[in-house]
Amino acid sequence: MPLGDGIHEKIITWQAPPLKFGVGATEEIGHELTRAGLRSVLLVTDPTLARSGLPAQVAKLIEQEGVAVTLFDRAQVEPTDTGCAEAARELASVEVDGYVALGGGSSIDTAKMLNLLGSHPGSTVHDYLNKPVGAGRAIPGPLKPLVAVPTTAGSGSECTAMVALGVTGLRVKTGISDPYLRPSLALVDPANTLTLPAEVTAASGYDVLTHACESYTARPYDRRPPFGSPADRPLYIGANPISDIWAERALELVGRHLRRAVLNPHDLEARTAMSQAASFAGMGFGNAGTHIPHACAYPIAGLVREYRPAGYDVSHPMVPHGAAVVATAAAAFAFTYPTAPERHLRAAELLGANLRGITVANGADVLPATLLSLVADTGGPTGTAAFGYTRKDVPDLVEGALKQQRLLVCCPRDVTARDLRNVLTAALAG
Amino acid sequence: MPLGDGIHEKIITWQAPPLKFGVGATEEIGHELTRAGLRSVLLVTDPTLARSGLPAQVAKLIEQEGVAVTLFDRAQVEPTDTGCAEAARELASVEVDGYVALGGGSSIDTAKMLNLLGSHPGSTVHDYLNKPVGAGRAIPGPLKPLVAVPTTAGSGSECTAMVALGVTGLRVKTGISDPYLRPSLALVDPANTLTLPAEVTAASGYDVLTHACESYTARPYDRRPPFGSPADRPLYIGANPISDIWAERALELVGRHLRRAVLNPHDLEARTAMSQAASFAGMGFGNAGTHIPHACAYPIAGLVREYRPAGYDVSHPMVPHGAAVVATAAAAFAFTYPTAPERHLRAAELLGANLRGITVANGADVLPATLLSLVADTGGPTGTAAFGYTRKDVPDLVEGALKQQRLLVCCPRDVTARDLRNVLTAALAG
Ligand SMILES: [Zn+2]
Ligand SMILES: [Zn+2]
Repeated sequence: MPLGDGIHEKIITWQAPPLKFGVGATEEIGHELTRAGLRSVLLVTDPTLARSGLPAQVAKLIEQEGVAVTLFDRAQVEPTDTGCAEAARELASVEVDGYVALGGGSSIDTAKMLNLLGSHPGSTVHDYLNKPVGAGRAIPGPLKPLVAVPTTAGSGSECTAMVALGVTGLRVKTGISDPYLRPSLALVDPANTLTLPAEVTAASGYDVLTHACESYTARPYDRRPPFGSPADRPLYIGANPISDIWAERALELVGRHLRRAVLNPHDLEARTAMSQAASFAGMGFGNAGTHIPHACAYPIAGLVREYRPAGYDVSHPMVPHGAAVVATAAAAFAFTYPTAPERHLRAAELLGANLRGITVANGADVLPATLLSLVADTGGPTGTAAFGYTRKDVPDLVEGALKQQRLLVCCPRDVTARDLRNVLTAALAG
Repeated sequence: MPLGDGIHEKIITWQAPPLKFGVGATEEIGHELTRAGLRSVLLVTDPTLARSGLPAQVAKLIEQEGVAVTLFDRAQVEPTDTGCAEAARELASVEVDGYVALGGGSSIDTAKMLNLLGSHPGSTVHDYLNKPVGAGRAIPGPLKPLVAVPTTAGSGSECTAMVALGVTGLRVKTGISDPYLRPSLALVDPANTLTLPAEVTAASGYDVLTHACESYTARPYDRRPPFGSPADRPLYIGANPISDIWAERALELVGRHLRRAVLNPHDLEARTAMSQAASFAGMGFGNAGTHIPHACAYPIAGLVREYRPAGYDVSHPMVPHGAAVVATAAAAFAFTYPTAPERHLRAAELLGANLRGITVANGADVLPATLLSLVADTGGPTGTAAFGYTRKDVPDLVEGALKQQRLLVCCPRDVTARDLRNVLTAALAG
């Protein structure tokens, strides 16, 4: 048992929920809940999905197996601390022994929060929110079982141990990362994504794309100083041989299938590939971490003034998470390229780029150009100007991004305010 | 939620334990046990390892964190039903709230059995053994936490939900497969494999090699009729996009590192790669399954008369599991080649074969030759004659292999007694 060299971290930690995947998997939800010994669940979904009728169908499937269902169909599109706290208060008298999340990342994150607050009554959202916004406390013990049924191919939240939350009043987003937040089962049925509008398919796909690219290019786990004790090691350890496997496969799937899924919503084969890619990317970045595009996406979403995205059923200005992350991706990967040219080129190649004639010396633009082409072909934002941002907004965006230190620490090179200014300025136009 | 087509199975199930991997990871065992809330554990290991002093060191690391340790250091090299039952009886008065397995697949499997019998007192090994040898009952509920610390790079048992057991009196091996058998944590420290004799390194590596090849070539999950209900779906679902990811990566690692690890036992980089390969293969075949080589390995091990392997500290004739599986691998993959030539060729390529000039029509020998070269270079058995078997033994070996229907069902083509006779005859010489 030789110890590490004292100079570098040596340990890889990795965890994923059990996965049940396939067209028709939704039909098995009742079986899974009874197998886990559950008698009553809270079904968490959002109003748009509720109108589609899917939650009612799922509730029926669950009840058929003798499990009682309480429906909560008001998950916010981008959940906030106060929204979750209020929902938890409202549901305080509802006794359930498990949770089912049905929807996109927002519904799954809301269910994680309701599970957290319901399983540990007396604690508040603020207790757990990342520092410096919250107190950053560890969750004191296990939560109740949560089966996550994604209806988008995007966040990978069905596989990860984190939630992203807006903080009311602060116009900032932050999150909670804790192993106890991981769902007890990811039940992924690509058929549930068939009715998504093209814009939602695209934005969700960009989220998968950046999860994979960011975790693949993150500062490697063994190029960090060792942690003082195992308890100090964070959930996000940086790129590692296990997260790499998932990221590589996700990139390959996105490169081959995202255009197809956006341009022909009925292409179930492409939908299936994108659903796999979303979960696979989640299995990777959920342990490795993300960096600049995700750090910038928080203020990009938080400071938006008037932008209302097509395809989303919202009454207020907002930037879909996937659109926000991809808008700075090209600029961010041009900045990180020198830290690992081979990895950036390999990511581009997996996405479909032709590397003939490309060398380390002339390849800095390959991954950015590959990303921009994919976004352009699928009608996405090639820069933050699309959301109404101008040069004058850059300082505020920089300030907001700098608050996401838990993400920036995964960037393969140190990131200063000046670096972020350069990235965010370049990202205006894409 | 369209259903499947009613003709093919559509669902992929996949599960793996949390993984902590790296040189020095053993040092964190106490932290992991206290984090899981454990106060007392049974440490299961074997006599050879006990003499090396490693179990005593590990016990100390655990006790330093305030967790009480009871040592059981008499795990059998190839555990049997009666051996496990006797150990469980002997330990019936020992109260622990968790288990630590330290050793090769045999020690980990023994710990799984002691956990099973300790967590569900009153039940017997026979209740759970696969039919027709046992009653094939499902485990009625969760077991206690089990942290598996492999000291070989082989079985992948730290990641899988199964045990392999010899059945006393029947000269046959069988097993138990049940999701509840999966360890709660795989704690993998490549440094723990540094002192393995070359023969053990080689045989363990052959086990990894065949796990990856067999799961990669297994009958695909979606080329089977649908199961009647989710409860009927077995643990081994056949090759699928998730097990493929793990198998491919394991093959690449074995192809590049097995020779190095066997020929220079101090090559920690190669040891690390082989430890990864073993766990990765376990993450794959533990959900996909194995087929002919593993089915044949059971009678090959069970019917041995006089063979005593070098490098193993045993007082009775035995064939190491990895040697037994690899001995029929070349013949088995020649038999399965026509079902999926591309997969067989891709497996060979990942192991290092040169496919220039190879086509589907002329490639049947490529994977067998690649396997035989790897085994020859590492001093392994290229056929079952090495264990003392002759043509006269083939009928008994066939009969024993035919009993492993739960494995043979994963073969990509239907397997008759005549097919097995051909494979086992060809495998005499390799
Ligand atoms: Zn994201
Ligand atoms: Zn094996």
